[in-house]
Amino acid sequence: MSEPERRPGGRTSRTTHSVLEATLAELIDHGYVELGVEAVAARAGVHKTTVYRRWESKQRLVLDALRSAAADALPAPDTGDLESDLRLLARSVVELLTNPVGEAAVRAMVSASSSSPELSATLRDYWAARMASMSPVVDRARSRGEVPAGTDAAEVVKAMGAPLYLRLLVTAEPLDDEVADRSARAAAVAARAGAFVAGAG
Amino acid sequence: MSEPERRPGGRTSRTTHSVLEATLAELIDHGYVELGVEAVAARAGVHKTTVYRRWESKQRLVLDALRSAAADALPAPDTGDLESDLRLLARSVVELLTNPVGEAAVRAMVSASSSSPELSATLRDYWAARMASMSPVVDRARSRGEVPAGTDAAEVVKAMGAPLYLRLLVTAEPLDDEVADRSARAAAVAARAGAFVAGAG
Repeated sequence: MSEPERRPGGRTSRTTHSVLEATLAELIDHGYVELGVEAVAARAGVHKTTVYRRWESKQRLVLDALRSAAADALPAPDTGDLESDLRLLARSVVELLTNPVGEAAVRAMVSASSSSPELSATLRDYWAARMASMSPVVDRARSRGEVPAGTDAAEVVKAMGAPLYLRLLVTAEPLDDEVADRSARAAAVAARAGAFVAGAG
Repeated sequence: MSEPERRPGGRTSRTTHSVLEATLAELIDHGYVELGVEAVAARAGVHKTTVYRRWESKQRLVLDALRSAAADALPAPDTGDLESDLRLLARSVVELLTNPVGEAAVRAMVSASSSSPELSATLRDYWAARMASMSPVVDRARSRGEVPAGTDAAEVVKAMGAPLYLRLLVTAEPLDDEVADRSARAAAVAARAGAFVAGAG
Protein backbone atom coordinates (compact mmCIF):
# COMPACT_ATOMS: atom_id res chain seq x y z
CA MET A 1 0.00 0.00 0.00
CA SER A 2 1.43 3.41 -0.95
CA GLU A 3 0.91 6.34 1.42
CA PRO A 4 -2.84 6.80 1.42
CA GLU A 5 -2.80 9.19 4.36
CA ARG A 6 -0.51 11.74 2.69
CA ARG A 7 -3.37 14.23 2.39
CA PRO A 8 -5.04 14.00 5.80
CA GLY A 9 -8.73 14.69 5.52
CA GLY A 10 -8.43 14.92 1.75
CA ARG A 11 -9.95 12.78 -0.97
CA THR A 12 -7.31 10.03 -0.79
CA SER A 13 -7.75 9.68 2.93
CA ARG A 14 -11.55 9.61 2.65
CA THR A 15 -11.40 7.00 -0.11
CA THR A 16 -9.03 4.85 1.90
CA HIS A 17 -11.29 5.10 4.91
CA SER A 18 -14.39 4.13 2.86
CA VAL A 19 -12.63 1.17 1.29
CA LEU A 20 -11.33 -0.13 4.62
CA GLU A 21 -14.75 0.28 6.24
CA ALA A 22 -16.35 -1.55 3.31
CA THR A 23 -13.74 -4.30 3.59
CA LEU A 24 -14.54 -4.85 7.27
CA ALA A 25 -18.26 -4.88 6.50
CA GLU A 26 -17.81 -7.41 3.68
CA LEU A 27 -15.53 -9.50 5.86
CA ILE A 28 -18.19 -9.64 8.55
CA ASP A 29 -20.99 -10.42 6.07
CA HIS A 30 -19.21 -12.98 3.90
CA GLY A 31 -15.96 -14.08 5.56
CA TYR A 32 -12.50 -13.97 4.08
CA VAL A 33 -12.85 -16.69 1.46
CA GLU A 34 -15.98 -15.18 -0.12
CA LEU A 35 -14.79 -11.59 0.17
CA GLY A 36 -14.58 -9.98 -3.28
CA VAL A 37 -12.65 -6.84 -4.13
CA GLU A 38 -15.41 -5.78 -6.55
CA ALA A 39 -18.03 -6.04 -3.81
CA VAL A 40 -15.81 -3.97 -1.53
CA ALA A 41 -15.44 -1.31 -4.25
CA ALA A 42 -19.20 -1.25 -4.87
CA ARG A 43 -19.91 -0.95 -1.15
CA ALA A 44 -17.37 1.87 -0.80
CA GLY A 45 -18.78 3.62 -3.87
CA VAL A 46 -15.46 3.64 -5.72
CA HIS A 47 -14.30 2.05 -8.95
CA LYS A 48 -12.65 -1.34 -8.53
CA THR A 49 -9.46 -0.10 -10.22
CA THR A 50 -9.09 2.38 -7.36
CA VAL A 51 -8.91 -0.56 -4.97
CA TYR A 52 -6.67 -2.68 -7.19
CA ARG A 53 -4.31 0.27 -7.69
CA ARG A 54 -3.87 0.88 -3.99
CA TRP A 55 -3.79 -2.66 -2.58
CA GLU A 56 -1.70 -5.31 -4.25
CA SER A 57 -3.85 -8.19 -2.99
CA LYS A 58 -7.04 -9.03 -1.12
CA GLN A 59 -4.84 -10.17 1.72
CA ARG A 60 -3.15 -6.75 2.07
CA LEU A 61 -6.54 -5.07 1.88
CA VAL A 62 -7.93 -7.19 4.70
CA LEU A 63 -4.83 -6.68 6.82
CA ASP A 64 -5.07 -2.89 6.37
CA ALA A 65 -8.76 -3.00 7.29
CA LEU A 66 -8.04 -4.98 10.46
CA ARG A 67 -5.16 -2.67 11.35
CA SER A 68 -7.28 0.41 10.90
CA ALA A 69 -9.98 -1.09 13.14
CA ALA A 70 -7.35 -1.93 15.75
CA ALA A 71 -5.94 1.60 15.61
CA ASP A 72 -9.32 2.81 16.84
CA ALA A 73 -8.84 0.73 19.98
CA LEU A 74 -8.01 2.37 23.30
CA PRO A 75 -4.37 3.06 24.18
CA ALA A 76 -2.73 0.76 26.75
CA PRO A 77 -4.09 1.68 30.20
CA ASP A 78 -1.77 3.06 32.89
CA THR A 79 -3.34 2.79 36.34
CA GLY A 80 -0.04 2.14 38.11
CA ASP A 81 -0.94 -1.50 38.87
CA LEU A 82 -0.55 -4.50 36.56
CA GLU A 83 -3.73 -6.28 37.62
CA SER A 84 -5.85 -3.12 37.25
CA ASP A 85 -4.37 -2.44 33.81
CA LEU A 86 -5.01 -6.04 32.72
CA ARG A 87 -8.54 -5.79 34.09
CA LEU A 88 -9.25 -2.79 31.87
CA LEU A 89 -7.80 -4.62 28.86
CA ALA A 90 -9.80 -7.77 29.66
CA ARG A 91 -13.01 -5.78 29.97
CA SER A 92 -12.38 -4.16 26.59
CA VAL A 93 -11.82 -7.62 25.08
CA VAL A 94 -15.16 -8.75 26.56
CA GLU A 95 -16.78 -5.63 25.12
CA LEU A 96 -15.36 -6.48 21.68
CA LEU A 97 -16.39 -10.14 21.81
CA THR A 98 -19.92 -9.50 23.09
CA ASN A 99 -20.58 -6.84 20.45
CA PRO A 100 -22.18 -8.43 17.34
CA VAL A 101 -19.85 -6.61 14.95
CA GLY A 102 -16.75 -7.42 16.98
CA GLU A 103 -17.77 -11.06 17.31
CA ALA A 104 -18.38 -11.32 13.57
CA ALA A 105 -14.99 -9.77 12.78
CA VAL A 106 -13.22 -12.17 15.15
CA ARG A 107 -15.07 -15.16 13.70
CA ALA A 108 -14.21 -14.01 10.17
CA MET A 109 -10.54 -13.88 11.17
CA VAL A 110 -10.73 -17.32 12.75
CA SER A 111 -12.21 -18.94 9.68
CA ALA A 112 -9.80 -17.00 7.45
CA SER A 113 -6.78 -18.33 9.33
CA SER A 114 -7.60 -21.87 8.25
CA SER A 115 -8.34 -21.00 4.64
CA SER A 116 -5.03 -19.51 3.61
CA PRO A 117 -1.47 -19.98 4.86
CA GLU A 118 -0.69 -16.51 3.48
CA LEU A 119 -3.44 -15.01 5.55
CA SER A 120 -2.17 -16.92 8.59
CA ALA A 121 1.11 -15.05 8.22
CA THR A 122 -0.82 -11.80 7.89
CA LEU A 123 -2.82 -12.57 11.02
CA ARG A 124 0.36 -13.38 12.94
CA ASP A 125 1.73 -9.93 11.99
CA TYR A 126 -1.56 -8.31 12.91
CA TRP A 127 -1.70 -9.92 16.34
CA ALA A 128 1.98 -9.27 17.01
CA ALA A 129 1.25 -5.57 16.39
CA ARG A 130 -1.83 -5.71 18.66
CA MET A 131 0.20 -7.38 21.43
CA ALA A 132 2.99 -4.83 21.01
CA SER A 133 0.49 -1.99 21.43
CA MET A 134 -0.56 -3.46 24.79
CA SER A 135 2.92 -4.36 26.03
CA PRO A 136 3.57 -0.99 27.77
CA VAL A 137 1.28 -2.36 30.51
CA VAL A 138 3.80 -5.11 31.24
CA ASP A 139 6.87 -2.96 30.58
CA ARG A 140 5.71 -0.49 33.21
CA ALA A 141 5.01 -3.31 35.68
CA ARG A 142 8.58 -4.47 35.09
CA SER A 143 10.00 -0.98 35.81
CA ARG A 144 7.93 -0.86 39.00
CA GLY A 145 9.38 -4.23 40.01
CA GLU A 146 5.94 -5.89 39.95
CA VAL A 147 7.10 -8.62 37.55
CA PRO A 148 10.60 -10.06 37.11
CA ALA A 149 13.00 -8.87 34.41
CA GLY A 150 12.71 -10.93 31.25
CA THR A 151 8.91 -11.21 31.51
CA ASP A 152 7.51 -11.63 27.99
CA ALA A 153 4.86 -8.91 27.63
CA ALA A 154 3.03 -10.56 24.74
CA GLU A 155 2.68 -13.80 26.72
CA VAL A 156 1.13 -11.94 29.66
CA VAL A 157 -1.34 -10.18 27.36
CA LYS A 158 -2.22 -13.47 25.65
CA ALA A 159 -2.71 -15.21 29.01
CA MET A 160 -5.18 -12.45 29.92
CA GLY A 161 -7.10 -12.69 26.65
CA ALA A 162 -6.97 -16.41 25.90
CA PRO A 163 -9.68 -17.58 28.36
CA LEU A 164 -12.03 -14.93 26.93
CA TYR A 165 -11.56 -16.10 23.33
CA LEU A 166 -11.85 -19.72 24.52
CA ARG A 167 -15.26 -19.02 26.03
CA LEU A 168 -16.51 -17.29 22.88
CA LEU A 169 -15.11 -19.70 20.31
CA VAL A 170 -14.75 -23.08 21.97
CA THR A 171 -16.67 -23.67 25.19
CA ALA A 172 -19.60 -21.40 24.20
CA GLU A 173 -19.78 -19.96 27.72
CA PRO A 174 -21.06 -16.45 28.45
CA LEU A 175 -18.67 -13.53 28.83
CA ASP A 176 -19.04 -10.76 31.38
CA ASP A 177 -16.94 -8.43 33.50
CA GLU A 178 -16.57 -11.02 36.25
CA VAL A 179 -14.99 -13.44 33.78
CA ALA A 180 -12.76 -10.61 32.51
CA ASP A 181 -11.62 -9.74 36.03
CA ARG A 182 -10.83 -13.35 36.88
CA SER A 183 -8.80 -13.75 33.71
CA ALA A 184 -6.88 -10.52 34.41
CA ARG A 185 -6.20 -11.65 37.96
CA ALA A 186 -4.87 -15.06 36.92
CA ALA A 187 -2.57 -13.48 34.31
CA ALA A 188 -1.29 -10.88 36.81
CA VAL A 189 -0.67 -13.48 39.52
CA ALA A 190 1.19 -15.76 37.11
CA ALA A 191 3.23 -12.82 35.75
CA ARG A 192 4.22 -11.66 39.25
CA ALA A 193 5.30 -15.20 40.07
CA GLY A 194 7.61 -15.20 37.04
CA ALA A 195 5.62 -17.63 34.88
CA PHE A 196 6.22 -15.59 31.72
CA VAL A 197 9.95 -15.03 32.01
CA ALA A 198 11.28 -15.91 28.55
CA GLY A 199 13.09 -19.22 28.55
CA ALA A 200 11.61 -20.27 31.91
CA GLY A 201 9.28 -23.25 32.24
CA MET B 1 -30.56 -41.67 22.33
CA SER B 2 -31.84 -44.98 23.73
CA GLU B 3 -29.31 -47.47 25.06
CA PRO B 4 -27.20 -48.33 22.05
CA GLU B 5 -24.53 -50.12 24.08
CA ARG B 6 -26.89 -52.66 25.63
CA ARG B 7 -25.37 -55.46 23.54
CA PRO B 8 -21.63 -54.76 23.89
CA GLY B 9 -19.75 -55.88 20.82
CA GLY B 10 -23.04 -56.79 19.16
CA ARG B 11 -24.71 -55.39 16.08
CA THR B 12 -26.25 -52.39 17.88
CA SER B 13 -22.91 -51.38 19.31
CA ARG B 14 -21.15 -51.79 15.97
CA THR B 15 -23.80 -49.76 14.17
CA THR B 16 -23.60 -47.01 16.77
CA HIS B 17 -19.86 -46.94 16.44
CA SER B 18 -20.02 -46.71 12.62
CA VAL B 19 -22.60 -43.94 12.71
CA LEU B 20 -20.63 -41.90 15.25
CA GLU B 21 -17.41 -42.34 13.27
CA ALA B 22 -19.20 -41.30 10.09
CA THR B 23 -20.66 -38.27 11.90
CA LEU B 24 -17.20 -37.12 12.97
CA ALA B 25 -15.86 -37.64 9.46
CA GLU B 26 -18.74 -35.68 7.89
CA LEU B 27 -18.35 -32.97 10.52
CA ILE B 28 -14.69 -32.62 9.63
CA ASP B 29 -15.36 -32.62 5.87
CA HIS B 30 -18.40 -30.36 5.76
CA GLY B 31 -18.85 -28.61 9.11
CA TYR B 32 -21.95 -28.63 11.29
CA VAL B 33 -24.25 -26.51 9.13
CA GLU B 34 -23.75 -28.62 6.00
CA LEU B 35 -23.75 -31.94 7.86
CA GLY B 36 -26.58 -34.13 6.59
CA VAL B 37 -27.99 -37.15 8.39
CA GLU B 38 -28.43 -38.95 5.04
CA ALA B 39 -24.77 -38.45 4.18
CA VAL B 40 -23.84 -39.81 7.62
CA ALA B 41 -26.02 -42.87 7.05
CA ALA B 42 -24.52 -43.43 3.60
CA ARG B 43 -20.99 -43.11 4.96
CA ALA B 44 -21.76 -45.51 7.81
CA GLY B 45 -23.39 -47.97 5.41
CA VAL B 46 -26.73 -47.97 7.25
CA HIS B 47 -30.21 -46.91 6.28
CA LYS B 48 -31.12 -43.35 7.21
CA THR B 49 -34.11 -44.53 9.27
CA THR B 50 -31.63 -46.36 11.52
CA VAL B 51 -30.03 -43.03 12.31
CA TYR B 52 -33.31 -41.16 12.65
CA ARG B 53 -34.69 -43.85 14.95
CA ARG B 54 -31.74 -43.70 17.32
CA TRP B 55 -30.95 -39.97 17.41
CA GLU B 56 -33.76 -37.47 17.81
CA SER B 57 -31.84 -34.65 16.10
CA LYS B 58 -28.69 -33.82 14.21
CA GLN B 59 -27.58 -31.95 17.29
CA ARG B 60 -27.82 -35.04 19.55
CA LEU B 61 -26.01 -37.08 16.93
CA VAL B 62 -23.11 -34.61 16.79
CA LEU B 63 -22.96 -34.38 20.57
CA ASP B 64 -22.79 -38.17 20.87
CA ALA B 65 -20.06 -38.29 18.21
CA LEU B 66 -18.00 -35.68 20.05
CA ARG B 67 -18.56 -37.44 23.36
CA SER B 68 -17.46 -40.77 21.95
CA ALA B 69 -14.30 -39.16 20.54
CA ALA B 70 -13.60 -37.53 23.90
CA ALA B 71 -14.06 -40.85 25.69
CA ASP B 72 -11.10 -42.15 23.71
CA ALA B 73 -8.93 -39.45 25.28
CA LEU B 74 -6.44 -40.31 28.00
CA PRO B 75 -7.55 -40.45 31.64
CA ALA B 76 -6.50 -37.52 33.86
CA PRO B 77 -2.78 -37.91 34.63
CA ASP B 78 -1.59 -38.47 38.21
CA THR B 79 2.12 -37.69 38.58
CA GLY B 80 1.78 -36.34 42.12
CA ASP B 81 2.50 -32.75 41.04
CA LEU B 82 0.03 -30.24 39.59
CA GLU B 83 2.39 -28.64 37.11
CA SER B 84 3.56 -32.02 35.76
CA ASP B 85 -0.04 -33.19 35.41
CA LEU B 86 -1.02 -29.98 33.61
CA ARG B 87 2.04 -30.33 31.38
CA LEU B 88 0.88 -33.78 30.26
CA LEU B 89 -2.61 -32.43 29.59
CA ALA B 90 -1.24 -29.41 27.70
CA ARG B 91 0.95 -31.65 25.55
CA SER B 92 -2.04 -33.82 24.68
CA VAL B 93 -4.00 -30.68 23.70
CA VAL B 94 -1.10 -29.65 21.43
CA GLU B 95 -1.11 -33.16 19.97
CA LEU B 96 -4.84 -32.84 19.25
CA LEU B 97 -4.59 -29.37 17.73
CA THR B 98 -1.58 -30.13 15.52
CA ASN B 99 -3.16 -33.31 14.17
CA PRO B 100 -5.09 -32.53 10.94
CA VAL B 101 -8.15 -34.53 12.03
CA GLY B 102 -8.17 -33.01 15.51
CA GLU B 103 -7.74 -29.52 14.12
CA ALA B 104 -10.59 -30.03 11.66
CA ALA B 105 -12.88 -31.34 14.42
CA VAL B 106 -12.10 -28.35 16.64
CA ARG B 107 -12.65 -25.91 13.77
CA ALA B 108 -15.94 -27.62 12.93
CA MET B 109 -17.06 -27.18 16.54
CA VAL B 110 -16.00 -23.53 16.51
CA SER B 111 -17.96 -22.71 13.39
CA ALA B 112 -20.90 -24.76 14.67
CA SER B 113 -21.06 -22.77 17.90
CA SER B 114 -21.92 -19.62 15.96
CA SER B 115 -24.45 -21.25 13.69
CA SER B 116 -26.92 -22.54 16.24
CA PRO B 117 -27.80 -21.45 19.79
CA GLU B 118 -29.02 -25.01 20.43
CA LEU B 119 -25.66 -26.37 19.47
CA SER B 120 -23.98 -23.79 21.69
CA ALA B 121 -25.83 -25.29 24.63
CA THR B 122 -24.75 -28.74 23.50
CA LEU B 123 -21.13 -27.62 23.23
CA ARG B 124 -21.30 -26.11 26.70
CA ASP B 125 -22.45 -29.48 28.07
CA TYR B 126 -19.77 -31.26 26.09
CA TRP B 127 -16.97 -29.03 27.38
CA ALA B 128 -18.28 -29.13 30.94
CA ALA B 129 -18.02 -32.93 30.75
CA ARG B 130 -14.50 -32.72 29.27
CA MET B 131 -13.43 -30.32 32.04
CA ALA B 132 -14.98 -32.57 34.68
CA SER B 133 -13.00 -35.53 33.35
CA MET B 134 -9.76 -33.57 33.87
CA SER B 135 -10.67 -32.05 37.22
CA PRO B 136 -9.17 -34.91 39.33
CA VAL B 137 -5.80 -33.32 38.51
CA VAL B 138 -6.82 -30.21 40.44
CA ASP B 139 -8.79 -32.09 43.12
CA ARG B 140 -5.68 -34.11 43.98
CA ALA B 141 -3.54 -30.95 44.06
CA ARG B 142 -6.07 -29.54 46.53
CA SER B 143 -5.83 -32.63 48.77
CA ARG B 144 -2.04 -32.37 48.66
CA GLY B 145 -2.33 -28.72 49.73
CA GLU B 146 -0.74 -27.51 46.50
CA VAL B 147 -3.65 -25.19 45.72
CA PRO B 148 -6.03 -23.47 48.16
CA ALA B 149 -9.45 -24.89 49.07
CA GLY B 150 -12.17 -23.54 46.81
CA THR B 151 -9.98 -23.64 43.70
CA ASP B 152 -12.22 -24.08 40.65
CA ALA B 153 -10.83 -27.09 38.78
CA ALA B 154 -12.49 -26.25 35.46
CA GLU B 155 -10.99 -22.75 35.51
CA VAL B 156 -7.50 -24.16 36.07
CA VAL B 157 -7.92 -26.60 33.18
CA LYS B 158 -9.24 -23.82 30.93
CA ALA B 159 -6.36 -21.52 31.86
CA MET B 160 -3.97 -24.30 30.79
CA GLY B 161 -5.73 -24.93 27.48
CA ALA B 162 -6.85 -21.43 26.47
CA PRO B 163 -3.49 -20.10 25.22
CA LEU B 164 -3.14 -23.21 23.04
CA TYR B 165 -6.54 -22.74 21.38
CA LEU B 166 -5.79 -19.01 21.04
CA ARG B 167 -2.63 -19.77 19.06
CA LEU B 168 -4.43 -22.20 16.76
CA LEU B 169 -7.60 -20.21 16.18
CA VAL B 170 -6.77 -16.55 16.65
CA THR B 171 -3.12 -15.55 16.55
CA ALA B 172 -2.13 -18.28 14.03
CA GLU B 173 1.08 -19.02 15.94
CA PRO B 174 2.77 -22.42 15.92
CA LEU B 175 2.14 -24.94 18.69
CA ASP B 176 4.79 -27.17 20.21
CA ASP B 177 5.73 -28.80 23.50
CA GLU B 178 7.55 -25.69 24.70
CA VAL B 179 4.36 -23.66 24.31
CA ALA B 180 2.43 -26.42 26.09
CA ASP B 181 4.88 -26.46 29.00
CA ARG B 182 4.77 -22.68 29.38
CA SER B 183 0.99 -22.71 29.40
CA ALA B 184 0.92 -25.49 32.02
CA ARG B 185 3.42 -23.62 34.16
CA ALA B 186 1.45 -20.35 34.06
CA ALA B 187 -1.78 -22.16 35.00
CA ALA B 188 -0.08 -24.05 37.86
CA VAL B 189 1.60 -20.92 39.24
CA ALA B 190 -1.67 -18.98 39.12
CA ALA B 191 -3.57 -21.87 40.73
CA ARG B 192 -1.03 -22.21 43.56
CA ALA B 193 -1.29 -18.46 44.18
CA GLY B 194 -5.07 -18.83 44.59
CA ALA B 195 -6.08 -17.09 41.35
CA PHE B 196 -8.85 -19.63 40.67
CA VAL B 197 -10.53 -19.70 44.08
CA ALA B 198 -14.23 -19.35 43.27
CA GLY B 199 -15.55 -15.94 44.13
CA ALA B 200 -12.05 -14.44 44.41
CA GLY B 201 -10.89 -11.64 42.12
